[in-house]
Amino acid sequence: MNLKDEVIISEVCPRDGFQSLADIIPTEEKVEWINAMIDCGFKQIEVTSFVHPKAIPQLRDAGEVLQKINRKQGVKLRALVPNLRGLERAIEAKVDKVKLMLSATDSHSISNANSKTFDAMKGFEPLVKRATEASMAVSGSISVIFGCPYEGDVPLERIEEICKRYIDMGIYQLSLADTTGMANPVKIKRIIGHISNKFPELSFSLHLHNTRGMAFANAVAGYEMGVRDFDSAIAGLGGCPYAPNATGNIASEDLIHGFEEMGILTGVDLDKVIKLGKELEIKYPQYSDSFILKAGKCSDLHLAPKTQEKLG
Amino acid sequence: MNLKDEVIISEVCPRDGFQSLADIIPTEEKVEWINAMIDCGFKQIEVTSFVHPKAIPQLRDAGEVLQKINRKQGVKLRALVPNLRGLERAIEAKVDKVKLMLSATDSHSISNANSKTFDAMKGFEPLVKRATEASMAVSGSISVIFGCPYEGDVPLERIEEICKRYIDMGIYQLSLADTTGMANPVKIKRIIGHISNKFPELSFSLHLHNTRGMAFANAVAGYEMGVRDFDSAIAGLGGCPYAPNATGNIASEDLIHGFEEMGILTGVDLDKVIKLGKELEIKYPQYSDSFILKAGKCSDLHLAPKTQEKLG
Repeated sequence: MNLKDEVIISEVCPRDGFQSLADIIPTEEKVEWINAMIDCGFKQIEVTSFVHPKAIPQLRDAGEVLQKINRKQGVKLRALVPNLRGLERAIEAKVDKVKLMLSATDSHSISNANSKTFDAMKGFEPLVKRATEASMAVSGSISVIFGCPYEGDVPLERIEEICKRYIDMGIYQLSLADTTGMANPVKIKRIIGHISNKFPELSFSLHLHNTRGMAFANAVAGYEMGVRDFDSAIAGLGGCPYAPNATGNIASEDLIHGFEEMGILTGVDLDKVIKLGKELEIKYPQYSDSFILKAGKCSDLHLAPKTQEKLG
Repeated sequence: MNLKDEVIISEVCPRDGFQSLADIIPTEEKVEWINAMIDCGFKQIEVTSFVHPKAIPQLRDAGEVLQKINRKQGVKLRALVPNLRGLERAIEAKVDKVKLMLSATDSHSISNANSKTFDAMKGFEPLVKRATEASMAVSGSISVIFGCPYEGDVPLERIEEICKRYIDMGIYQLSLADTTGMANPVKIKRIIGHISNKFPELSFSLHLHNTRGMAFANAVAGYEMGVRDFDSAIAGLGGCPYAPNATGNIASEDLIHGFEEMGILTGVDLDKVIKLGKELEIKYPQYSDSFILKAGKCSDLHLAPKTQEKLG
């Protein structure tokens, strides 16, 4: 493992975390949270999604949030866009980058976007054309690529075809999402290895859920395959949609702490992230899920007690 | 990674899990739990610890438990022994193997065993002599080897010296314990790589805690270094002594599920483990901590819904 190599941690709490909360967060409060995240040193933040306000009421203030936050040089603001209307709003809001959402399987795609995978991709064409006109950076995504909760494993040929069509559209940055935590290190290496070999022009980021306790192992496997861009959410906000109490997004503080312990730099101020995570946890205890918020960092040493119970 | 390679999962719930419960479990109930674990197909079970009843009242019925459980060929029953008196009880109870507990650092050793590391090792000598006389298999352990909550990193030279003294006593099987979850994959590889090279006559097992979300990644790192023996506890019973709500032992169902998903066989019946884990979780909800009990297996597919909220 190449130590001292740096990774980018993309903070997705404002989009993926907040959209999972039942209560609407007031715009001003959202702006404060995002400003605090910018202050942590994240180089990329998924700020919002320009969906129809009725689809996700939590994110109906997307444009206003983007207008009010304190932008900072070197911090890229990303937003999801599901359609041309959303893209126009994103262009108007001057985000740095838009991301297209796609599911690897038809059943997941239908349930999420009301159309089959390749039909959804056809719908991307006018968006990519318009984004190019507006000089807006576009990245793609492949949800449930490491396993679909309805169909299980996704055939490699299908993944190849999705990658090929993204390339045909001129999209070279893909977020590979383990949407319901079905990946494992062998699968991560097999799939990323396969599509990296086949399409060396593509670059990948990983969006990992800790649903089955393997997110950090999967991050390490991705790192070993050359991935240097990872999504995570402060305090682990953003759940798993299939099991009410199951873990969702890997917590930013867990991912950053783990990488830094391994000697992999993130450029993010872990102590600020932990402080912010604690504030989010106090405010939204039922949604937060984080190891480091509970246990502290490895470097937080304890005073040796005089007497103490036997340990395992 | 060599697929289809098999690992041994050593179930430690009856010792490490039960000893962390506040309420005393009746002997008959303990026997039932352990019989159910034997029926799951674990090849090794850490059944109890022959400590003084006052030190850990939960395990005061160690001898009786061992007398009453249904032993099965191929299932090794292991017990901890802290001293000669405990060893005599273990010999009388006809366990298959005894394990010596040792801390890598003086501060942890003093707080756990009331003596410094190398003083504690001196105390092992009469135990090893007596065990050899009784043809009892003995293994050693090194707690906090991947980080001590009082001292931080343990110097490699100190770890070497501990290994050397174990070898001098004729002990070649060592359990490396990440007692408070301070390991990471790089540290696992560095330390195991170092002592494997230096002492090829030693074999290692890993006892991992998921305190900071890295247990499975650490298991994979250990596997890649040749380790084929891993401790875990059904339902994740057995906590972290420093942070009240923090995670302790990696859950057996999480470890088995993860390995099997990677194509690494365990020989354990995962469905039986999950069923038993659910029963333990119902009985001891405040102590259980398991991903698979919450989220189910990757292979538990869902029915695709007609309409559904947008996912991350």
